[in-house]
Amino acid sequence: MVSKEVLKSGVKSGPAIGRLSTYVRTLAVLEQDGVEVISSQELGEMEGKSATQVRKDLSSFGCFGRRGLGYTVTQLKAQITGILGINRIWNLILIGAGQLSEVFINSEAFKRNNFCVRKIFDNAPVLIGKRIEGIPVWDIGDLEKEIDPETDDLAIIAIPPRNVQSVIDRLGKTGIKGVLYFAARAVNAPKHMIVVNQDISVALGIITYHITNRPNQAL
Amino acid sequence: MVSKEVLKSGVKSGPAIGRLSTYVRTLAVLEQDGVEVISSQELGEMEGKSATQVRKDLSSFGCFGRRGLGYTVTQLKAQITGILGINRIWNLILIGAGQLSEVFINSEAFKRNNFCVRKIFDNAPVLIGKRIEGIPVWDIGDLEKEIDPETDDLAIIAIPPRNVQSVIDRLGKTGIKGVLYFAARAVNAPKHMIVVNQDISVALGIITYHITNRPNQAL
Repeated sequence: MVSKEVLKSGVKSGPAIGRLSTYVRTLAVLEQDGVEVISSQELGEMEGKSATQVRKDLSSFGCFGRRGLGYTVTQLKAQITGILGINRIWNLILIGAGQLSEVFINSEAFKRNNFCVRKIFDNAPVLIGKRIEGIPVWDIGDLEKEIDPETDDLAIIAIPPRNVQSVIDRLGKTGIKGVLYFAARAVNAPKHMIVVNQDISVALGIITYHITNRPNQAL
Repeated sequence: MVSKEVLKSGVKSGPAIGRLSTYVRTLAVLEQDGVEVISSQELGEMEGKSATQVRKDLSSFGCFGRRGLGYTVTQLKAQITGILGINRIWNLILIGAGQLSEVFINSEAFKRNNFCVRKIFDNAPVLIGKRIEGIPVWDIGDLEKEIDPETDDLAIIAIPPRNVQSVIDRLGKTGIKGVLYFAARAVNAPKHMIVVNQDISVALGIITYHITNRPNQAL
């Protein structure tokens, strides 16, 4: 989910943008493999989508192939990368130094995609002032003081659900531009901050829905 | 993304089902707070959605409120829980015993939502035969032998991206019904298996897109 302000602003929906992300990662693999040109049919097959869906998605963002030829892989990848804004480095701060944050600190995908974890905030005295994989851990009490909206772009909140709203309230005052959180609850956020929730219960619910409602099921 | 087979089967789209999951978790909070009735307007405000969107989502799954009164919280929650199939226990197996799996093993949300981790598979000799939080760790080499499709419902794959396809191929032969994975790549899966990918790069891409393309931006 994306905050209401975004949905009202007339830009594309979350799912459409999400599909761009999946195309760009496939294009990166194709580029690595030395593939120069790809048709919407071929790209669709790799993504489990129809050629029509691929062409529609890409053209809605202004990306067009050449009839009978397809898309130039390197060019399309560069174009989508620019549209998504991932052709630059994004500095991340992590709220919480728990198991989930460790996953992000060590994420190869983050490094490959220019998402750099720069600061960690936690409330455990044993961690504050230390470094995890070279990244400094600050006292969460100093959040407002230590976040610099000129250099810190996005925050990832990886703390228990009950504390997420209060951290979002505090982040809202720092001027940070975007927040990703995982807690299974809706939050209120100031309009200038893009807030996205990625909830694993939602992903599991999509699976259980399809299994429960599938035709000729044999559960 | 959901596998092609699902999209073709005529059931609802991933985003629509995802919104049901978000409504049900809000309804659970309301129920705990003793709220008996809620209007689509109120529910929409809590979710950052319009009343019209809420009514449309719910009615498309056969959930209707009473005009001028709204929805009975307990009843609507039970109804959605049944539609999503989360009114029963789902037995999970985890592929990989790394940091991400630890998050799931300790997840309060999993426990609350009847998602029970029953088996872990890994290739580290030091872990095989041991238990993590009481859950047995099996040799990934014995995947086909140890998975019982009668009792094991879903698999969560938490291993490096390059190994995901081969594990999905192997899971496909076990008869397990659903798979969730996180690797930033598309996979091929047999038709009987519901495969969903939750990729954090997609979530971050939605944020960076909105920040990059927002009107009157000052980056």
